[in-house]
Amino acid sequence: MPESTAMELVTVGTVESPLTDRAAAPKQGDEGAPEAWLIFDQRFADALYGIAAGDDLLLLTWLDRADRDVLRVHPRGDPANPEQGVFNTRSPDRPNPVGLHRVTVIAVDGLRIRVRDLEALHGTPIIDVKPPLGGIEER
Amino acid sequence: MPESTAMELVTVGTVESPLTDRAAAPKQGDEGAPEAWLIFDQRFADALYGIAAGDDLLLLTWLDRADRDVLRVHPRGDPANPEQGVFNTRSPDRPNPVGLHRVTVIAVDGLRIRVRDLEALHGTPIIDVKPPLGGIEER
Repeated sequence: MPESTAMELVTVGTVESPLTDRAAAPKQGDEGAPEAWLIFDQRFADALYGIAAGDDLLLLTWLDRADRDVLRVHPRGDPANPEQGVFNTRSPDRPNPVGLHRVTVIAVDGLRIRVRDLEALHGTPIIDVKPPLGGIEER
Repeated sequence: MPESTAMELVTVGTVESPLTDRAAAPKQGDEGAPEAWLIFDQRFADALYGIAAGDDLLLLTWLDRADRDVLRVHPRGDPANPEQGVFNTRSPDRPNPVGLHRVTVIAVDGLRIRVRDLEALHGTPIIDVKPPLGGIEER
């Protein structure tokens, strides 16, 4: 396989959250995650244009505390669950630890966006934001 | 903002598709995309364990033909659509051009996975695969 060049991510923002400990964080955002702030870098302000309170968003993060050498896990960290390849789980440990989170926007304040249902830890780098795809007729 | 270190992606596989031209490709996978193969690198074989025909998967790719300097676009490339920040669109042009695709597995043949509904172009690097989250009771 040819090596790809320039697959280097830039940090576009950072998560501000009360969650600081991976062991104590909920495994998914809808399992009791607190509200959090997304703090964007001024350079990317234009990319936020149009995002408003009430929107659902897909947030992509870089799970900087993940182990990139893990290829198989017991799902949800439970030894009773048969081992699976990480590509068949939502484990943060994986070759490219990109987190994918569905959040709801509570408020927009310039470069700061308040969201609900985010299980990412404080300080997690944000790499991308996308709207979820609705039905074909809504695009 | 502190610079994050080591946000360097590795290619875990590559898309083999009849689609070679961005202008001719459908904008989303459910808008007439052909079937495609995902060809994984041997090093990541263990990470695929458990994936089977019939599964729905979220595929993350590196959209290597995107323009990373674009911050605002007319959605779907239509000048009649008011300009939006790229984080409020599914434009491939964005600071970190990570593609997010929902596909259905048709067949698994070792390191090769045949999928339906993938609009990514031939040669696009694959960076991650995740199952979609079902309801809480299914996790």
